[in-house]
Formats: sequence, structure tokens, C-alpha cells
Amino acid sequence: MFGLGLGPGDPELVTPRARRILRRVGVVAYPAPETGPSFARSIVASLLTPALTEIAIRVPMAPERAPAQAAYDAGAAAIARHLDRGSDVAALCQGDPFFYGSFIQIFERLAPRYRIEVVPGVASLMACAAAAQAPLAVRDEPLLVVPAPIEEGELERLLAGADNAVIIKLGRHFAKVRRVLERLGRADRAIYVERASLAAERVLPLAAVDPATVPYFSLVLLRGGTEAGS
Amino acid sequence: MFGLGLGPGDPELVTPRARRILRRVGVVAYPAPETGPSFARSIVASLLTPALTEIAIRVPMAPERAPAQAAYDAGAAAIARHLDRGSDVAALCQGDPFFYGSFIQIFERLAPRYRIEVVPGVASLMACAAAAQAPLAVRDEPLLVVPAPIEEGELERLLAGADNAVIIKLGRHFAKVRRVLERLGRADRAIYVERASLAAERVLPLAAVDPATVPYFSLVLLRGGTEAGS
Repeated sequence: MFGLGLGPGDPELVTPRARRILRRVGVVAYPAPETGPSFARSIVASLLTPALTEIAIRVPMAPERAPAQAAYDAGAAAIARHLDRGSDVAALCQGDPFFYGSFIQIFERLAPRYRIEVVPGVASLMACAAAAQAPLAVRDEPLLVVPAPIEEGELERLLAGADNAVIIKLGRHFAKVRRVLERLGRADRAIYVERASLAAERVLPLAAVDPATVPYFSLVLLRGGTEAGS
Repeated sequence: MFGLGLGPGDPELVTPRARRILRRVGVVAYPAPETGPSFARSIVASLLTPALTEIAIRVPMAPERAPAQAAYDAGAAAIARHLDRGSDVAALCQGDPFFYGSFIQIFERLAPRYRIEVVPGVASLMACAAAAQAPLAVRDEPLLVVPAPIEEGELERLLAGADNAVIIKLGRHFAKVRRVLERLGRADRAIYVERASLAAERVLPLAAVDPATVPYFSLVLLRGGTEAGS
């Protein structure tokens, strides 16, 4: 089977390799919310034919982990049934499969039993930096990626030690992130990006963001130092 | 002008958007060693026509920064001359332009005067994780990216505080990196990857690597924790 990185959302950022594999598999699987369409599927909707079998892995967004784990168990089992029958399966992944992708859940369940080829994709991280016209890191600078849902004190401790950082998965955690950055005196230089590469893309200073409107697919870019990246 | 992320090396990972822009510009610029071919150019060599004007920005690899800065100054000036004459220019970048790309040097020189569109690419980070079958990070785990050339004590301090980490730009710094990971008791779980997505790609345990053969385009993946990414 395949894990296909489809990039941040713009179909023009889907690589030829992912397109070629999509044309040859009989089954596609993708994550989706409990109700409504799958973002990963939407990126390649124009490439999917009616002959394809589709497996929607509907993952509850509950704070408890058990319901999501059960959904991944069922999704992996459904994929395995197709593989056992000799059908090849492509799992569709927004961004890159191994960079915080829910595909990792499927990979860890199936990799012990099946050969899985992962096709890397353009990660949202890079798409957001491009949208913001803001380099992530240069030369010998470290770069920290940190998910916003972590505990506030831990978030502050990590960011205090990182000149260049990206805070991902903002959603309902945005207000907490802004609070931490204000305490660290770094809110003014931070850049907020949502839905990079899509028509609805927005790049804003932190102060201009309404926390009530922040989607899960958004992040904050922080560049440290005073040196102009030379 | 454009900064085009061309991915880790496999031409099948060059996005349709980068291909479309390549077809419409009259000038391409790319980094190259003082002598010999440019890796960025090689990724799209089959797409370049004889009608294109090519600017090779030959960057000395000296430890001093002044010669490299002078090369970027000259490269940016050459690009600016074409832009001023009304030609459009695409800068070719291996990986992603804003993720440790030498393109950042060109961007910082020209962005104050010209409109620059950056097209994100598949970063080597993601290509190496795919090659190694090793997820970078999942759920709420932080991920640290750290360039190998930094000072040994600082490298050790940073890695001691990071469960998930990627050490990039290994080259002649490999022996130092392995020494640090051995001191931290983490060498056994580290994975070495070089030239991901190319025919010469290699994935090795740290102990099997000959430091004399390590190229600049290589990295070490470190995954912390005992939890299977659930």
C-alpha cells in the first residue's frame, strides 16, 4: 500500500509521483470528520474515478483518545481486507504523511504486516512560510516545531528556548498561544497563517486574529535573532 | 521573480506548479559549487530548454562567510539586471526554498525591491522520513531540527531536551554528531539517511556509517518516547 502526501491543499502542489500512484490503485482511504467531507480527499477530488473504492476513516474529534483509536483500528482493518484480497490501497494525506499526519496511526497498525511506500508531500509548514514570505530557518539556526495543544507552561518553556519556532494545530488553542507569546515579548514579530495555498489563505499579524475563527489548519511562525539571515 | 522548491532530487517530486512556472520564465538562477554541476539544476535538467538564460551562483564552501556573501551579492545583482529589463526569473532550489535554502540569501537581497513568489517544495526532511519508514512526530510531540555544524556542547544540550529531533547538514560533522548521540545513550535508535529519493539513497543505522563518506545532503532522525505514536 501507499501513504500519499498530497501537500497543503492546492492541487497544483500534488506531485507527479502521487498522481501516478493514484491512477493505479483500486482503493483509496482517507481521514474525515464524523460528518462532512474529507480535506485530504478534496485535494485530489478531480483525479478520483467512480471505479475507485473509497474508505472514509471518520475520526471523532473528542478530547479522549479511545474513540479516535477505535476509528483507526477499524480503518486499518478495512484497508487490510482489501490488501488481503490483492487490491492495492493508497491512503490520502494532506501535507506530508510522516509530519504529524494521522496516517501515522494507520502506518503503525499495518507496517508490521504489509509493505507500505510513503510518498513525501509539501508540508503545511513550508506552504505557510511561502505564503508569509518568511524563511523558517537559515544556516546553522535550530528550528522548533511545537503543537499548540500542549500545556501552557510547557509551551512557554519550549518557546523561551527557541529563536525560530513554528506553532502548529492552533484551532481553539490560539488564545493560549497568543498569551504565551505576549508574556515572552514575542507577539509583535509573530506571523499567523491559515489555509496556506488555498483560495481562503490568510496571513495576519497576531493582534489581528479573532480567536473564534481560527481553524485547526493554521500556524504561527516565529523568527528570532536580529541578523538578516546572512 | 520566483523561488521554486524542487524537492529532494527525484524529478517526480517536482510539483506541477513549479513545472508550469519553469515553462514561462526566460531566466533561471541556481546555486552551484565553485566547480562542477548544480544539484538544484540537475533535478529539472530535462525541463530546461536551450532558449533559457542560466545564472549559476557559484558559492565557495569556505568556512569564512565573506566569500559566500560576495557570491550571493553578485548572484542577486545578476538576477536584478534581468528583472529590470523585464525578464522573469526563477531561482531553482533543492528541497524547500525557505527551509534552510541558500535561496534565503537571494530573497533577503531582492525582496525589498521586487515581488517574489515562493513555491514550496517537498523538503529533504520529509523525503528522508519516508525513505527510513520513520514518522517525524505525531500528535502533540515537539520536533526539533538542528544543523550539525553547531558547536558540540550546544548540540548536546539541544538534543538532551528533545525527544524527536532531526540533525541536518551532516557532511564532515557526522563523527561529532555520533559522539554526542552515544554520550546521550541515543545512538542505537538513530537512523541515518543520505540522498533521499535519489537512486543513490541509503538508510543505515548510525553504527554502520563511515564518516569519511557522509555527504552534506544527509541527516539523522531521532524518535523519542516508548509510545508507538498513538
